[in-house]
Order: sequence, then C-alpha cells, then structure tokens
Amino acid sequence: MSLPEAEVMPVPEKPRDTVPTQVFREVMGHLASGVTIITAAQQAAPVGMTATAVCSVSAKPPMLLVSLTAGSRTALGVEQSKAFAVHLMAHDSQNYAEQFAAAGDHFAGVSYRRDEQTGVPVLQDVLGYFLCLVEHAVDIADHVLFVGRVVECEVKAPGHHPLVYFDRKYRKVALSESQPGSLEPWGSTQDYGLPGWGLPT
Amino acid sequence: MSLPEAEVMPVPEKPRDTVPTQVFREVMGHLASGVTIITAAQQAAPVGMTATAVCSVSAKPPMLLVSLTAGSRTALGVEQSKAFAVHLMAHDSQNYAEQFAAAGDHFAGVSYRRDEQTGVPVLQDVLGYFLCLVEHAVDIADHVLFVGRVVECEVKAPGHHPLVYFDRKYRKVALSESQPGSLEPWGSTQDYGLPGWGLPT
Repeated sequence: MSLPEAEVMPVPEKPRDTVPTQVFREVMGHLASGVTIITAAQQAAPVGMTATAVCSVSAKPPMLLVSLTAGSRTALGVEQSKAFAVHLMAHDSQNYAEQFAAAGDHFAGVSYRRDEQTGVPVLQDVLGYFLCLVEHAVDIADHVLFVGRVVECEVKAPGHHPLVYFDRKYRKVALSESQPGSLEPWGSTQDYGLPGWGLPT
Repeated sequence: MSLPEAEVMPVPEKPRDTVPTQVFREVMGHLASGVTIITAAQQAAPVGMTATAVCSVSAKPPMLLVSLTAGSRTALGVEQSKAFAVHLMAHDSQNYAEQFAAAGDHFAGVSYRRDEQTGVPVLQDVLGYFLCLVEHAVDIADHVLFVGRVVECEVKAPGHHPLVYFDRKYRKVALSESQPGSLEPWGSTQDYGLPGWGLPT
C-alpha cells in the first residue's frame, strides 16, 4: 500500500469507557419520573413492583414499554401472563409505592381485580393505569424490555397530584403553576416537516 | 375428530381491541415525566428535539433508551452519528424545551460543544446530561428504540428544580417536601430474593 493511500485511512476510533455505575445512578436520579407500580401474574399468583422505568413507545398503535431485571419475579410474571399492568400512582398513595418496593406481601391491604383473560392484577386506588399485552420482549444486558400493546387504560383520579421521584426522594408537583405546553407526553413532539405525531395546542 | 376430543380443545382467546389513540394520549399524559432534550448529528449538522420518552435500562453496564419517531430528523441523526445525548432540563430552562419542541432553528442562542468523536452536540445550560453510543436499535411500530451505552454523564446544576411535564403542562416539583425514599430511579427496585439492583437506603 502506498503512503498516500495510507494517509487517508481513517484513524481507528478510540474505544470509549463506560461511565461508572455509581455516577450513572447519581445522574439518572436527576431524571424526574412518575412513580408506577407494574403488575403481572406468575403461576396464577399476583406479582408486582414499584418502578420508574416506563416509557411510551408509539401512539398509533398505543404501545408502551417497561424495563425489568431479568429473572425478577415481576419479569417472570410478565413472561408467563404475556401481559402487564402499569399503574400511575398518586401522591397520596406513597404507601403503596413503598409497599411494592419493599420486602413482604406486596398486595396486603391493596384493592385489585384480576383481569379475566390474563390474570393480571389491576389496582383500584391509582391515578390511572394501562393494561398491556406483550408484543415484544428484548433482552438488554441484565434487563428485559417488555413492549406491550395497550388494551385498557383509564385516568381514575383526575385532578390528583402524581407521585414523582427525583434525587432519591418522593416528590409532589405544583399543579397550579405553569403555562400550557405544546409538548406531547412522549418521544416525538413536533419534529416539523417530517412524520411525527406531536399535536400543537 | 371425536366429540370428547373437541370438548377439551381450548376456547380460542377473544382478541382484544387496542384502546383508541386519543384515550391513550390522555392517560399517558398523566405519567409525570422529566423533560429532556435529545440531540444527535445528521450529516454533521446538529439535530435535536424535546422528549419525555427516555428510560433507564440497566446500571451494569449503564444503559438508557430513547424512543423516537422513525424518519424524524433526530432519529436519522442518531442513526448517522451512532450516538445521542440526553439532557435533563431544569425548570428555569423551559424556553429551551419550547424551542426544541417548535419549528425553527432549535440551536439558536443555545450554548453547546460538539463531541469530538461523534459530533453530537452537548448542551451546556442543563440540569444534567448523558452521552450515549448506540448499541441496539429496535423498530417498534412507527418508532425506533435506540439503546445506548453511557460514555459520559454529569449533574451540571445540582439543587436546581427539574422541568416536569404532566397533564399537558410544564410543572415544577416541590423540592423541600417529601421523605427519603428507597426506590432506585429505574425499573428494578427491591424485588427481594432475586437478582436486582435496588439499593436500600
């Protein structure tokens, strides 16, 4: 190979280190997140956990995803029931979020019904919920992304404050303050001039 | 086939309708979300958009995902630069969120540097940010999930209020109120007795 040819060869990319887990946790803690409880059914038993790793995927058709530790009871339940429910928790239901994040019987004293087809427990005292049938399961590192098609959803307590997690604490949002926004509550917003589904308000 | 055999055949599952998009949007609007700006580089030009569809995936290794409309400028930019940045916006930066959600020059008046290797613009006036190299891209309906390994991240404005979106409005969280929680800011929390990476506090 002649020198001129060698000169135009691309410089090999320097491999880049991954950030330390502890630093990632600290920064990720600064992504404010609505607190949810994710439920499913494992061998007919209700399972569930408190989580913030919930994300809208598409609106047409309505789909959302949850990221769960592979092998966790809730992940096994989602695999078995091929369905999951995501409950949006209200600020006055912090005790439920704590119960589903701790050891012990998660469903003690919790009102719920079982979905007839999937057996998934649907909690009653929530700000809102989604019931989803799993359409995709994607293994990423030690987690599984479950993507579900939404077959039921409802706002059950309109006007209630959501329970929010930020910087390792439960938080409340100020409902009265703020101006109307034009941002859709998912990933697309107005990427003008190209397909998208942001709705100007 | 004999009748007794026919009798034990499973009843076909009733197909379940997907919820209408408008209903999904209404309920998804009640998932409180930190507002982010996602950036990338398309043909060397900086691109970006305001989004809430951001989700932690794993902490070991640190990975997160964004859900973008397939074919949008930002999605094309992520595909080209094989990288993206996620910026956590502070409440006093609502103007940036609005600028990146509207038509016009998203980067007008915005301070940023370009990452040397990927060309991805990294915004300066933010609560925090992540720079990610794409490891997986998953097509789901009309969206693409980009899963990235985190190679840089930092809290740049500790103590600032995050900008939160809820029920179609920008919101502020009350920082003083609330008790310490034990919930990790992603999907796993304490699913006791099984692998997980919730950290009791």
